[in-house]
Amino acid sequence: MRKIIVQKFGGTSVADTDKIKNVARTVIKEKENGNDVVVVVSAMGHTTDYLVKMAKDLSPNPSGREMDMLLSTGEGVSIALLAMAIQAQGYSAVSFNAMQIGIMTENVHSKARIVDIKTEKLRKNLNEGKIIVVAGFQGVTEDGEITTLGRGGSDTSAVALAAALNAERCDIYTDVEGVYTTDPRVVPNASRLDKVSYEEMLELAHAGANVLHPRSVETAKQFGVPMRVRSSFKLDNLGTLILGVEKMEIYKPVTGVAADSSQARIVVCDVPDKPGVAAKLFTKLASENISVDMIIQSYARKVSNTNDIAFTIDMADLSKTVSALENLKSEIGLTGDIQINDNIAKVSIVGAGMIDRPGVASTMFETLGQQGINIRMISTSEIKISCLVDKDDAQKAVKALHEVFELSCDETADVKGDLPDV
Amino acid sequence: MRKIIVQKFGGTSVADTDKIKNVARTVIKEKENGNDVVVVVSAMGHTTDYLVKMAKDLSPNPSGREMDMLLSTGEGVSIALLAMAIQAQGYSAVSFNAMQIGIMTENVHSKARIVDIKTEKLRKNLNEGKIIVVAGFQGVTEDGEITTLGRGGSDTSAVALAAALNAERCDIYTDVEGVYTTDPRVVPNASRLDKVSYEEMLELAHAGANVLHPRSVETAKQFGVPMRVRSSFKLDNLGTLILGVEKMEIYKPVTGVAADSSQARIVVCDVPDKPGVAAKLFTKLASENISVDMIIQSYARKVSNTNDIAFTIDMADLSKTVSALENLKSEIGLTGDIQINDNIAKVSIVGAGMIDRPGVASTMFETLGQQGINIRMISTSEIKISCLVDKDDAQKAVKALHEVFELSCDETADVKGDLPDV
Repeated sequence: MRKIIVQKFGGTSVADTDKIKNVARTVIKEKENGNDVVVVVSAMGHTTDYLVKMAKDLSPNPSGREMDMLLSTGEGVSIALLAMAIQAQGYSAVSFNAMQIGIMTENVHSKARIVDIKTEKLRKNLNEGKIIVVAGFQGVTEDGEITTLGRGGSDTSAVALAAALNAERCDIYTDVEGVYTTDPRVVPNASRLDKVSYEEMLELAHAGANVLHPRSVETAKQFGVPMRVRSSFKLDNLGTLILGVEKMEIYKPVTGVAADSSQARIVVCDVPDKPGVAAKLFTKLASENISVDMIIQSYARKVSNTNDIAFTIDMADLSKTVSALENLKSEIGLTGDIQINDNIAKVSIVGAGMIDRPGVASTMFETLGQQGINIRMISTSEIKISCLVDKDDAQKAVKALHEVFELSCDETADVKGDLPDV
Repeated sequence: MRKIIVQKFGGTSVADTDKIKNVARTVIKEKENGNDVVVVVSAMGHTTDYLVKMAKDLSPNPSGREMDMLLSTGEGVSIALLAMAIQAQGYSAVSFNAMQIGIMTENVHSKARIVDIKTEKLRKNLNEGKIIVVAGFQGVTEDGEITTLGRGGSDTSAVALAAALNAERCDIYTDVEGVYTTDPRVVPNASRLDKVSYEEMLELAHAGANVLHPRSVETAKQFGVPMRVRSSFKLDNLGTLILGVEKMEIYKPVTGVAADSSQARIVVCDVPDKPGVAAKLFTKLASENISVDMIIQSYARKVSNTNDIAFTIDMADLSKTVSALENLKSEIGLTGDIQINDNIAKVSIVGAGMIDRPGVASTMFETLGQQGINIRMISTSEIKISCLVDKDDAQKAVKALHEVFELSCDETADVKGDLPDV
């Protein structure tokens, strides 16, 4: 049986008709390799921004249902144009939106999760030798309502299609050449990783490496779909393969270093040291849909019988968090200050190899100490250690850690595109 | 039971967000009148041109299927925006594309005909008090393929929806104030008709009055749906009501005068006077999808045993027609010239009242003769008489006929928008 490759191209890769022709050539090359090809595309370039602007002109708070109706048209344009571009080069192609295929989601607007993908129409058209072009980012409910999948939605569409079709691989074409040991704009001789595990990729993504949205990686991990991140423009470069940790040979304890300066730290002072108080606090934040990342609770002070609770949140949730805490004050008997610090950055080292190698954490702390960098909070997972530092120290920290864990290569990376801010 | 009004707004009426807000107000006004409202909209302004341009960039001859996928996105944008605009004014609204409702068509791309419209979803949402916004111009096949309805498609969508829902009326909002006795740019004191019959409207449309596409009028006639053509911008003007001739009282023999200069006349000289020759000629043209309008065959000449066949076609089909005729030459033994004249115009008088009033045709010919206008061909139907004249004479002919059949009013029409060229 022929192998199925799912390819995904983002909005910048299909931003104009010349770029769409380029994508068509890449798609056809994979077909010429003897594979069946399913291509997932996002809306062209700035289409979404343009549609959102019109919606805001009409309503300060447009309904989620109608926003999904509106935004899903963007992919409708790009799939038809890509199918035409492929046909113009003499290959058989057909485009489908989510409703036509049956990319079934829950009945939630603007951030639906895929629950099922029907494969009959896809298999029939693949068996007829056609290249299939599918609209990313969108889905449909049992009742025929159109939904969208939220941030990283097209990557998730592609991985879910690859899982449903039992595809050989899901290739995410983007404007970077793969996953790097750290941001090459900070460390010019950062190395491109040939392979990285789902787990490491997830930690890197959460730690601020914006190459892939964590949701698509989670889906790939869940269904064991190998993903490849590669450049739309440099096809001789195979990019980075993302796969199960069990399939990897691990040479180094640390795979990558990432920095994330999009968080703010909140310290809630003098919280009564009674059972259930912390639970109330974080339940309240969860109910407001605020994600909390690092959490530290200090030892209870014997005299006042209170402690301080510090945690980090997304900067975007800052005002929502502060008002939630104000509302909580009387409820849980808060009397102390609420301190906010948004001048911080989270620096993380990630690596499946650190599991069975002691001393990685101490090397990290020692390295930061030698640089005179003050560590404000620490959190760890099996394959990640994160330190909260002052924002101004973040680049210095990344450089030193990249060096000490021997991640540099001899070449200077050729960097452009939307790598994360540090 | 509440009455259902179907409203249709074309691309110029929804060309930007300000205009969409204006449409929302018009829709809400009808809802406030105590009616249930279904609104059909076309794609915004120049969206279709823009999409077609991109398609042409990618392929000299894009597939009909993918063109329909592409073009149907245009209405997807306008329906969602209009629903948002209605919601922003505090009314409940929901948008649906053709696939969601089930506007079923034959499996033909770019000019499909509607075969059925499912009404369950529409009735359910109307019963919930919602204003329904429907994408015009598009349909879906049994197999879930997206189709478009071709020229005048959105008008046809609106009329077909009105028929399926047994609506009270289908209001076509446009940039003219109704149907006039003739083009007000030619005759400034042309009268707006309060009422016109389907049959007359069809003849006027075919004769060059571009207010409505004949297809939508045919559909309205078939299902007995009253239509109203009215201005999007002057709501105090009720426009023109189009309904069955049996419901009208007829005062005048002639209802309107129209001129159409988009045709060319072809004369095929010295055609052998044998049975079946003319049939072969017109069968050939039909197989090339060329519509022939007026046809005249001269008396056979006794000496040569040949005759001349003259007919008119759409100017757009001219080169296709000439090459079809060249191909036919040996097949039917043509030896004579093929003469082409594109400097002609068809001037028509239309009126259900001419059926039982003799002398209308002779008045027309006499009037043209008095003006020194040469009549090159004549064709008639029950309610129409058309004369082919030189293009330069068309305006003079329209003015004289409008005068002699007493169609002028005392006011000068306020004209703008895309009335037909003469």
